Amino acid sequence: MKKIEAVIKPFKLDEVKEALQEIGVQGMTVLEAKGYGRQKGHSELYRGAEYVVDFLPKIKIELVVADDLAPAALEAIQTAARTGKIGDGKIFVSDVIDVVRIRTGESGPQAV
Amino acid sequence: MKKIEAVIKPFKLDEVKEALQEIGVQGMTVLEAKGYGRQKGHSELYRGAEYVVDFLPKIKIELVVADDLAPAALEAIQTAARTGKIGDGKIFVSDVIDVVRIRTGESGPQAV
Amino acid sequence: MKKIEAVIKPFKLDEVKEALQEIGVQGMTVLEAKGYGRQKGHSELYRGAEYVVDFLPKIKIELVVADDLAPAALEAIQTAARTGKIGDGKIFVSDVIDVVRIRTGESGPQAV
Ligand SMILES: Nc1ncnc2c1ncn2[C@@H]1O[C@H](COP(=O)(O)OP(=O)(O)OP(=O)(O)O)[C@@H](O)[C@H]1O
Ligand SMILES: Nc1ncnc2c1ncn2[C@@H]1O[C@H](COP(=O)(O)OP(=O)(O)OP(=O)(O)O)[C@@H](O)[C@H]1O
Ligand SMILES: Nc1ncnc2c1ncn2[C@@H]1O[C@H](COP(=O)(O)OP(=O)(O)OP(=O)(O)O)[C@@H](O)[C@H]1O
Ligand SMILES: [Mg+2]
Ligand SMILES: [Mg+2]
Ligand SMILES: [Mg+2]
Repeated sequence: MKKIEAVIKPFKLDEVKEALQEIGVQGMTVLEAKGYGRQKGHSELYRGAEYVVDFLPKIKIELVVADDLAPAALEAIQTAARTGKIGDGKIFVSDVIDVVRIRTGESGPQAV
Repeated sequence: MKKIEAVIKPFKLDEVKEALQEIGVQGMTVLEAKGYGRQKGHSELYRGAEYVVDFLPKIKIELVVADDLAPAALEAIQTAARTGKIGDGKIFVSDVIDVVRIRTGESGPQAV
Repeated sequence: MKKIEAVIKPFKLDEVKEALQEIGVQGMTVLEAKGYGRQKGHSELYRGAEYVVDFLPKIKIELVVADDLAPAALEAIQTAARTGKIGDGKIFVSDVIDVVRIRTGESGPQAV
């Protein structure tokens, strides 16, 4: 299984959620976050103020999917989250060793 | 070391924490989250409303443990978090390469 | 790439952020959290009250960096977050398989 974590613009959450559900992603977790990327938060808003560095509000989503669904999930997030302006976000992919569905006790890919 | 992430029902946090402390888990981190699983949030509450899709409040816990404690931690979370109703949650297990205890500078399993 | 997650004292966030920017870390995500470590939260404040176990407010930071920047990032976090008192926090390091920069579609280390 793969864990896909994406940090996106907050107003894009609904579109990303719908895009993921359309390709069959069955579960996801959402966290409020703040962050900065290459432009260091608000600094792009202030002319010449190179040392203004601050955090902007972001949404972090986390989804664990079977390996074969990961490429489509990446594609769905990218397409739905992109505005073309700076700060559109990042996606991180990592390995998951095991998943347990607490109610049923199932584990492995069918538990995702 | 293993990282165990679990998304659980908020009212189960105390029971899960106690179950983990009883088996010797020495540290844990808790985050507020929201999420959906197979039933897509509130949809189960509305008869026939198959397209109602929303997020429900959840708690995410994260604990990093030595490899040999991981099976007992999984078992403790499952037992303490289970109600038998939908939405009981998920547990995800992944590998951790290194841990540092900031105050002492220790690293590796004894830093956990 | 490596994911570095650190749970630190909230008032240390600015110092940690600056230390990371000085060594060239180009992005980071911040989450509000609560947690306990070996002393189980507030218990150390109550004489004899061995069973007082509670969560303390913490900040969790997450940064994904190219492999060669990881040791300097660990060092920067440790130095900036340390007060020498209990509860200074923990750092966890894990592997990241892929990173996507949503705006540009870049992936891999240059997307970080
Ligand atoms: N290396 C990183 N590690 C952890 N989080 C990151 C990293 N880079 C970006 N983020 C998170 O993603 C959010 C959005 O990043 P952002 O899209 O601005 O990246 P960028 O590299 O500056 O790309 P762009 O030039 O398109 O703005 C940040 O606010 C931060 O929360
Ligand atoms: N694949 C997943 N990836 C990330 N988070 C998930 C995933 N599946 C579930 N979650 C998180 O766990 C929470 C609880 O999921 P839930 O227990 O409803 O899973 P489920 O598969 O629908 O099982 P059940 O049929 O018992 O309800 C969700 O609200 C979400 O936050
Ligand atoms: N094993 C762990 N897994 C997940 N989170 C942890 C773990 N240990 C500590 N944390 C997080 O880090 C925070 C700070 O931990 P803390 O610095 O108290 O660790 P400690 O081992 O007790 O070290 P110290 O003796 O210096 O206090 C905790 O509140 C918790 O959020
Ligand atoms: Mg940016
Ligand atoms: Mg469900
Ligand atoms: Mg402690």
